[in-house]
Amino acid sequence: MTDLLHRLRASFGRPFDLLGLGECSLDFLYRVPLALSQPLPDKASALGQEVLGGGQIATACAAAARLGLRARFVGAVGDDDAGAALRSELAREPVDTSRMKTCSRCQTRTALILLGQSGERSVIEWRDPALTLPIETLSAQDVAEARMLHVDLSFPSASLWAAEQARAHGLIVSVDLDRPAPHCAELLRLTDLCVVSEHFPARFTHKTDPEQAALALSHATPGQVIVTQGDRGCWLVDGPHIRRFPAFAPPQLLDTTACGDTFHAALLAALLTSADQPAPVSLDHALPSAIRFASAAAALKCADLGRRGCPSRAQVDRFLHDAPPELTV
Amino acid sequence: MTDLLHRLRASFGRPFDLLGLGECSLDFLYRVPLALSQPLPDKASALGQEVLGGGQIATACAAAARLGLRARFVGAVGDDDAGAALRSELAREPVDTSRMKTCSRCQTRTALILLGQSGERSVIEWRDPALTLPIETLSAQDVAEARMLHVDLSFPSASLWAAEQARAHGLIVSVDLDRPAPHCAELLRLTDLCVVSEHFPARFTHKTDPEQAALALSHATPGQVIVTQGDRGCWLVDGPHIRRFPAFAPPQLLDTTACGDTFHAALLAALLTSADQPAPVSLDHALPSAIRFASAAAALKCADLGRRGCPSRAQVDRFLHDAPPELTV
Repeated sequence: MTDLLHRLRASFGRPFDLLGLGECSLDFLYRVPLALSQPLPDKASALGQEVLGGGQIATACAAAARLGLRARFVGAVGDDDAGAALRSELAREPVDTSRMKTCSRCQTRTALILLGQSGERSVIEWRDPALTLPIETLSAQDVAEARMLHVDLSFPSASLWAAEQARAHGLIVSVDLDRPAPHCAELLRLTDLCVVSEHFPARFTHKTDPEQAALALSHATPGQVIVTQGDRGCWLVDGPHIRRFPAFAPPQLLDTTACGDTFHAALLAALLTSADQPAPVSLDHALPSAIRFASAAAALKCADLGRRGCPSRAQVDRFLHDAPPELTV
Repeated sequence: MTDLLHRLRASFGRPFDLLGLGECSLDFLYRVPLALSQPLPDKASALGQEVLGGGQIATACAAAARLGLRARFVGAVGDDDAGAALRSELAREPVDTSRMKTCSRCQTRTALILLGQSGERSVIEWRDPALTLPIETLSAQDVAEARMLHVDLSFPSASLWAAEQARAHGLIVSVDLDRPAPHCAELLRLTDLCVVSEHFPARFTHKTDPEQAALALSHATPGQVIVTQGDRGCWLVDGPHIRRFPAFAPPQLLDTTACGDTFHAALLAALLTSADQPAPVSLDHALPSAIRFASAAAALKCADLGRRGCPSRAQVDRFLHDAPPELTV
């Protein structure tokens, strides 16, 4: 398979940098003066409440837009107030929402997020079984208008179809996976960038040793495998080796929701910048630098709630300018 | 003080039957496959989600509208999606919302309701401190246009002012109190109908014996005191005695939220009907019959979630027609 930077370079000039397909959600966040390690009382008063756009793919698109990418999001909402709110919030980023589907007599996916007194978190998600995203929502031409595809397995058939179209039309395919699901293995075989959180490799490969699991995962995909570990940094699987990258300490730590989605978006944004340099750059050189950029963006995200904390490119550049140069440990 | 039925009778022909002033809320209800006696897990999927209008006074107005009363609600919402949803949901009942206040840069009150696998419930409410209801929201003329006032102490100054105006203009004053709050004693002195749930008398009077507490509460108000006890019925304080009324068994039991508000509204609706009879009826006769009507309405409410279950007058009449005649125990 051709180096992903070469393919990215060849797609220069298309209308969209990023096509995201998958989960979107309206999140209701309640800060409570309670320890979530205890049962909830019958009645309590919250310290604050926020309604935030969420869902891993929609949030990655929003994060990409903040970083200056032209992003389009494809997903499904219900014909309710939550769907309208979610759509208009994405459009303000701005993310193109023209291919989003509104399902009739259906509720938008929501998540209730309780944030306890010590920052602990409990998430209760609701997804209407009637919420669907048929393959016909998107045309092959829609896919061919973008340079990179970022998908999860919320709508497996649509994601697989989009990934196949992406490979046919020269897009880079990036995936967000958090647990083994139907079609996971098929999707991984079409993937260029597989950035997953630390629990996924063991769940997918059934290997308990984290390094063995990460290496085994890399055998399941032709793409690059990166395993993120929150404030402990991330691993890049490099042939039979694992390269470790530390995280940046967040300048302000209010909320870690959406840090992973921001990491995904910033990694893609940095690789795109490398691909579009006048002089060709090798992936060996570009990838560590993109991981550094993504780690900085994820650390900056923590300063505000949910996707509201996604930083601009200028904020990430300024942060990296002031950061110590050596990141690899 | 003149018998409340006489005062009600004298106000015949005013544009509104009921003026409600106090709490309104948008409630997010999540049904979860969890035992709420245990701590919540990090992540769970809900079995269903509903967005429902709530808040004790707004719900009583909605329940009154279902029973055929012309109801007006006065309360405050924020300038957000929740406020717009709440307002339009009330208007559909129909409840007059023309005097509701929208507070700028302010969030609407919301409540998150978790419904556990055995019907147990945990409520987390959020009220923006910036949400206010100034006395100027309402004019004396607005009060004089109604026949009955129903208030809580969400906005104590506005409630007290409205109760004073109500006494001056011949309205019946009904209160919904759930815990002692500033101005509680003052409001009780202006009250004709004090229907409270079973914990209130002890909290207000500091008497642990429930009967002694109920009797002591009745000394704090010139009005009628009724203490509701859910499926165990209710008490009417009658001079130095307590008369007990059983509850009706709900034909369907899905959710008890809003049963108390429905009881309030149905009691007022039944008293209004008695007052408007061609031949005068005594309160001694009308009150037990109104309690019977209110108990039936509250039992029927249980068939659906939140205020969606509030019954129509025809439904209550049909239920009572088929019910055994003797209710007092």
